[in-house]
Amino acid sequence: MAIVIIRQDDKIELWKKALLAQQPDLEVYSYLEEHPKERIKMALVWKHPEGALANYPNLKLIASSGAGVDFIFEDETAPKNLPITRVVDDMLAKDMSEHVLAVILSHLKNLDRYRVNQTKGIWKPIQYRRISDFTVGIMGLGALGRELASDLVKYDFKVQGWANSKKEIEGVKCFVGESGFQGFLETTQILVCLLPLTDATSGILNKNLFKQLPNGAFVINVARGGHLVDEDLLEMLNNGYLSGAGLDVYHQEPLPKEHPFWSHEKIQMTPHYASVSDTNSVVPQILENYDRLLNGSSLLNEVMMDKGY
Amino acid sequence: MAIVIIRQDDKIELWKKALLAQQPDLEVYSYLEEHPKERIKMALVWKHPEGALANYPNLKLIASSGAGVDFIFEDETAPKNLPITRVVDDMLAKDMSEHVLAVILSHLKNLDRYRVNQTKGIWKPIQYRRISDFTVGIMGLGALGRELASDLVKYDFKVQGWANSKKEIEGVKCFVGESGFQGFLETTQILVCLLPLTDATSGILNKNLFKQLPNGAFVINVARGGHLVDEDLLEMLNNGYLSGAGLDVYHQEPLPKEHPFWSHEKIQMTPHYASVSDTNSVVPQILENYDRLLNGSSLLNEVMMDKGY
Repeated sequence: MAIVIIRQDDKIELWKKALLAQQPDLEVYSYLEEHPKERIKMALVWKHPEGALANYPNLKLIASSGAGVDFIFEDETAPKNLPITRVVDDMLAKDMSEHVLAVILSHLKNLDRYRVNQTKGIWKPIQYRRISDFTVGIMGLGALGRELASDLVKYDFKVQGWANSKKEIEGVKCFVGESGFQGFLETTQILVCLLPLTDATSGILNKNLFKQLPNGAFVINVARGGHLVDEDLLEMLNNGYLSGAGLDVYHQEPLPKEHPFWSHEKIQMTPHYASVSDTNSVVPQILENYDRLLNGSSLLNEVMMDKGY
Repeated sequence: MAIVIIRQDDKIELWKKALLAQQPDLEVYSYLEEHPKERIKMALVWKHPEGALANYPNLKLIASSGAGVDFIFEDETAPKNLPITRVVDDMLAKDMSEHVLAVILSHLKNLDRYRVNQTKGIWKPIQYRRISDFTVGIMGLGALGRELASDLVKYDFKVQGWANSKKEIEGVKCFVGESGFQGFLETTQILVCLLPLTDATSGILNKNLFKQLPNGAFVINVARGGHLVDEDLLEMLNNGYLSGAGLDVYHQEPLPKEHPFWSHEKIQMTPHYASVSDTNSVVPQILENYDRLLNGSSLLNEVMMDKGY
């Protein structure tokens, strides 16, 4: 019985060490080293290469090492009918919340524009805006959205959220489903997308949605690149309807050099690093699920296959 | 009995209108128009040209229209022995607090570096830092410093302050005077200067102070350019001891084109616009003081001449 770690960045050894530090007798392999494929019960994955999951005859669990699982669904060669788990991590939610707050404040206080002006030697005061004058609307009230909503209330923003089902969060006005969407958008000056990427949410950040926001709205996408229709965002920024955007995620990552987002003055880009699973904080729930898998107990943070998240 | 407004920016008419909106029968002049100098009892000033205050034989009060009064003390032609008042404005304090929070978060989340990288087409994730890991130390616990301290506590920073006399602010550890300075600096990872500019504080942000901060500290100056020894900051940034600086104020403003701050990657510059007196919010206390002056009552927010603030 063993675990295999499959990911294409340089963090395989980091994860291996973190797992072994907390359970030294664990049998754990990198998918890049020689390893006994039939012993693998669990694959700990993050944006694995397509096909890599098809090599394990006794695989019983696909565990994402982050909050997202969309890359697993997108891999058509991945074995079907296996349970999939994701990470639900307070740290991950808090990191995301702090990142979004930083992006919002950078916009309200014009720090992004000042930083560009500085590179050009331009001294130009720009009127700032105040927290208390803004309503932030959060699409998606899962673990990340809830943490962000609560934090923004504490920071004195007006906060509202939109979700598939009714949520109760103190100080946050919640809109539900299709019928609540228009009301949510009409009053959202800063829109934050924290939805899971599914067939229903792919391309949801499009021109039709942007037009329902108030003039001058600011859009933050920290979910997945697939939520955003890039051309629609560019059109609505260039015609002056939207005041700006903060993007951490893109259709292709790294974003290709020739993409117009790079040189756009109204777009604040970060390289998909708003919130990164902290191995030490996440390893205990990974090990707990491995233990549950071996013992036949019910798994933590299992993904609902019918919802896609 | 009349008021004259003296300032060199383009806001004289704005202030005049704001004063008249709240008291339509007020006699108020721009110093640039023809006006009866002997009728002037109060001068409402902001960085007035040197000598402009010497023209009023019956002047009884010099009222700064901002929080600072250093420019009045620096004008040796200004009449001595007149009362000087400043503005104490909740809005001004809140604006400053939000600006400082924005600068801190931009640093912790690397938004300043990402914005520069974006202009160069560089995709490079940089490890972010968490609010809960940082202690912010505030020099100066007047109206602005207190508001910032309280807000940062609410935002989950560890917060400490340094002042001339003991202050009580919930959740904030206060260090006092010369004897408390070293202890304050040793444990301050993010230093915010909100001191008044006086003979005692001029040049206080120097190499000797920076060396007492922990390695990797970040320095924010939102008080006055005169607090900072520019060369010392550059040296401590370039030798890697300090991780960065956020500056809103400079010895000369606008900052001359050839100044090395402009092109420094570790310096986030803003053009002295962190917090600007909002005329509508400030006018009532200006009118109240004018009224008190005419009635011989004690003035609001009068500056202590011996302290210089």
